[in-house]
Order: sequence, then structure tokens, then C-alpha cells
Amino acid sequence: MQTILRSKSREVVIDTDGPVLIIGESINPTRRKKLVETLSNHDFEFAIQLGKSQIDAGADILDVNVGFPGVDDAALLPETVKAIQEALDVPLCIDSPNPKAIEAALKVIDGRCLINSVNGEEKSLEAILPLAKEYDAAVIGLVMDDDGITHDPEKRFKIAEKILERAVKLGIKEEDVVIDPLAMAVSADPNACLVTLETIKLVHDRLGLNITQGASNISFGLPNRDYLNMAHMVLSIWNGLTCPIANPNKITTMVRAADLIRAKDDFAMRFVEHYQSQQADESGK
Amino acid sequence: MQTILRSKSREVVIDTDGPVLIIGESINPTRRKKLVETLSNHDFEFAIQLGKSQIDAGADILDVNVGFPGVDDAALLPETVKAIQEALDVPLCIDSPNPKAIEAALKVIDGRCLINSVNGEEKSLEAILPLAKEYDAAVIGLVMDDDGITHDPEKRFKIAEKILERAVKLGIKEEDVVIDPLAMAVSADPNACLVTLETIKLVHDRLGLNITQGASNISFGLPNRDYLNMAHMVLSIWNGLTCPIANPNKITTMVRAADLIRAKDDFAMRFVEHYQSQQADESGK
Repeated sequence: MQTILRSKSREVVIDTDGPVLIIGESINPTRRKKLVETLSNHDFEFAIQLGKSQIDAGADILDVNVGFPGVDDAALLPETVKAIQEALDVPLCIDSPNPKAIEAALKVIDGRCLINSVNGEEKSLEAILPLAKEYDAAVIGLVMDDDGITHDPEKRFKIAEKILERAVKLGIKEEDVVIDPLAMAVSADPNACLVTLETIKLVHDRLGLNITQGASNISFGLPNRDYLNMAHMVLSIWNGLTCPIANPNKITTMVRAADLIRAKDDFAMRFVEHYQSQQADESGK
Repeated sequence: MQTILRSKSREVVIDTDGPVLIIGESINPTRRKKLVETLSNHDFEFAIQLGKSQIDAGADILDVNVGFPGVDDAALLPETVKAIQEALDVPLCIDSPNPKAIEAALKVIDGRCLINSVNGEEKSLEAILPLAKEYDAAVIGLVMDDDGITHDPEKRFKIAEKILERAVKLGIKEEDVVIDPLAMAVSADPNACLVTLETIKLVHDRLGLNITQGASNISFGLPNRDYLNMAHMVLSIWNGLTCPIANPNKITTMVRAADLIRAKDDFAMRFVEHYQSQQADESGK
């Protein structure tokens, strides 16, 4: 199944049978004081820099989130999107809990973006899915609903199925629904990652959809976090993850390694190319 | 299923339902000139040092291989085994292609060891399995036979099954047969790792045996080898690998991460303990 996204001049295809694509997570003000400051001043240079460095490190798509306390993101998100798509030619993933901000961003998008996100709550389904349909965007469906977050993979799967059904009913193509299985901290619940991995497998096996995940938090509260995140990433890819939302500076090598091992990278082209671009970066510093 | 090994005073249980145990690979002269030199002089201090540093880094069992050109390993292997088990209290995995060396080592073993290895060749089955029975040792069964190495996971599985049947027929308990699915370089064959992973899954699902693997070679000829080895290790563990033969200095953190993610490490005890012992090592340097 193929989810097709576009920027000004480039098409990016997230393909369930292809290599893994990376959605760069770093244009997000959480724990980035400088991003809060610059965005507050309508200065987009730093956001663009963050975007560019992620593309250089292997990102295929950029997540754009401008949420911080007191922000009017229905004004700031479209402004940021405009600045970024003027500077950088990759598809965007517009990220806000506020449907008004999503709609405002959709109005200015060049090409075809991914909405982050709808979930199984009635209110969310009613607010977000019509926007995806109207503006011809793909949409991430997060597997939580009015009952909150379940720890049963079958129940998470049911929510994914419900989101897909509701989307298709509105005329959205099934390939434009990308499921986020939810990743939670393994320090809080020993089964947290296993539940996520089983949900990924169910969605992959039964629905065949593209699957995303922002998973850096699985290692919250533990040491050696990069190793935990890499192990979880590799296992998620094995089970069906196709487009993680992640920091490419930390994860691209491991994503390429997983693709090579599962025979999605003939002649190790992508793996070696990434290595060479890293080396070029190093020698350019 | 449980494979029980013993040293002088310690019992180590490789359990298909438990966390992954590591068989330290480093007492092996390949590319270790100093080990060749010291062993040639019947000086075992360096071998013991290699063993100790692997135990400190997380090895539960030590592989002992003294193969180098011109060696009389039927004499040197038992001599090395004696020196190591006098100095270090962990079970050993005695590693030689020469049945005479295996038998000579079995005669001096304190406790219960693992033989590395028998394979599906008639000659090997006839030479090694009776030794495992006679000396009450567990044995690694490598999935190649008189036809060489097959790239079909079902055929590799058949060889595993044959080795198991032949062992059981001789009175060896099935839990004392540990299968090695064979790992080959992914640079030479894009499907190499996938074939290994599928073989692991077949042996795990259908026979339920413990599974080992010496896999550092999967990354031969490629850059960023540690990442490839880690990704392959995590996926092997997910599919059923329980006791890799590896360099614990490079792989223990990732093995512990994989166990934590698949809910084999409640409260992250082993993961955090390993981190703390690493920190203690660092500050002791």
C-alpha cells in the first residue's frame, strides 16, 4: 500500500513494501527553548535549520509542531509551514491537537501533507477527518479513543479499524490512513513495548496500512536510552512500522541497518550511501 | 526448554523462556596474534584475561577455541580448558572442528559444557554425538550437511530436525541440543540475514530448542558494522535466539535492551545493572 505525499516539486511515497522512510521530529518546541524564542518572534531561520539538518541526516518528511504554552497555533502553524516549504523541498507532517491550526495549515500547504493526527475519540474523528477529505491530505490515526488508552493490542487494533472505517466512509482512501500504535515508557509498564509491537503486527497483518510511531519516549527514565530506542525501532520495523517520527541524527543508521537485514536494500545501496554522507559531513566540519 | 551447564561451582541455565545469555567469543586466535603467541608458549594468562574481561562485560559462558595453523589442538585445547576453569568459574563452550580435541577437552572439564559443534554431515554426527552422550555434555548443532550450506530456511530446519533426532536416538536429551542456524554475510547475499532469521523462527516455533549463533560475520565487507550486528542480534532474539556467541564488550547493552523491550527484564533490573557495571568500569579506569 502506498501513501503518496508531495512538496513543491517532490513526491515521496511511503510504501508498505519498500524501505522505511523517516519523519523528522525535531521541529517541535518541547525542550527546545531556542525554538520557542525564535518562533515567538516570527523568526523561522532556526526552524528551517532544524529541518535542513534532519534532511541531511536522512529525513524524508518533516513533522512541524509549534505547540508551546500561550501560542496561537492557528496563526503560527500556517506561518511556520509557509516559511519551511519556501526554504525546504520535502513533504510536511502538520502536527497539532488543535483542528483550527490543522485547517489553517492545510490552507497554505504546497503539495500533499500528512495530518498528525486524528484519534478514535468522536470529537477528533468529526473535526479532523472532514479536513483530510476536503484538503486531500493523508492522516495519522492514533489508537486511543473516548475510553482513553488501552493496553490490549486487540483493542488498540479495533480503534485503528474504526478510524479507517470512518475515514473510508467519508471518501478518504484507505492508503491515506497511517496508523500510530502508541508507544509508552517501558519503565512504567514492562509490557509497554510488547503491546506496541503486537499492535503494529495486527495492523500490518490485517489492514496492511502504513504505520508510524513517535517512540523516543519508550526509554523515558532509563539510562542508555539510545540503545533502547534503537532496539525498539528495529523490532517495530520488523513487525510493520514504515514511517517512524524520529530524530534522524540518532536513528537513521539503525533504520538503514534494519532495512538491509530484512532484504529491503539491495546491494546495501542506501546503507552505504548514508554512511558516505555521514563521512562527508564529518570531513566538512 | 532448559539447557543446564555447570562450572566448578556455578550452574547456568539457558532457558527458552528466560533472558538471553551470552557466550563470549573472544578466546579464539582468529585475528588475535597475541593469543596465538601466548598459547603457543603454553602461557594462558592472556586467554584468562580475555575470559575475565568478557565475564565483566556480561558473558555467562565462554567459548574456548585454540585453532591456528600448525596447532596440535588435541593437546592444547584440554590444557587451555584446564587453565581457564582453574581461574574462572563459568561454564565453557569447547570449540573445535577436531573430534579428538573435543574428546580430550571433555575429559578434563569440571562440570557440564557445551560442545561447539556437530553438524548434519554423517561423519560429524558419528564422531561428535557419542561424545556428547558419553561425557554428558550439551551440543551445538550447526545446520549444514553433506550437501553443504542451503539457503532455504525449510531445508536448514530439516537439518536441525535431523541432528535432534539423531541425538535423541543416542539418548541425549532434546534440551541438550542447541541449534546454530548459520549466519552469513549480507554483502554477499541480500537474503542472507532473512534466511537465518526465518530458520531461527522455524526452529523456535516447531522444535522449541535453545538457539545460538555466531553472527559478527553478517556485516563482513560493510561499514558501520556494529550497527548491522546490533540490528541482526535484536531481530534474532525476537525470533528465538537465546544464547548468541558474541563479543559482550560490543553487544551486551543491545542484548539487554532487546530483553527489556520484549518484557524479559522486569523493573529493568538487568538493563540497569549492566549500565551500572559499565559506569563502575569507566570510573575504575
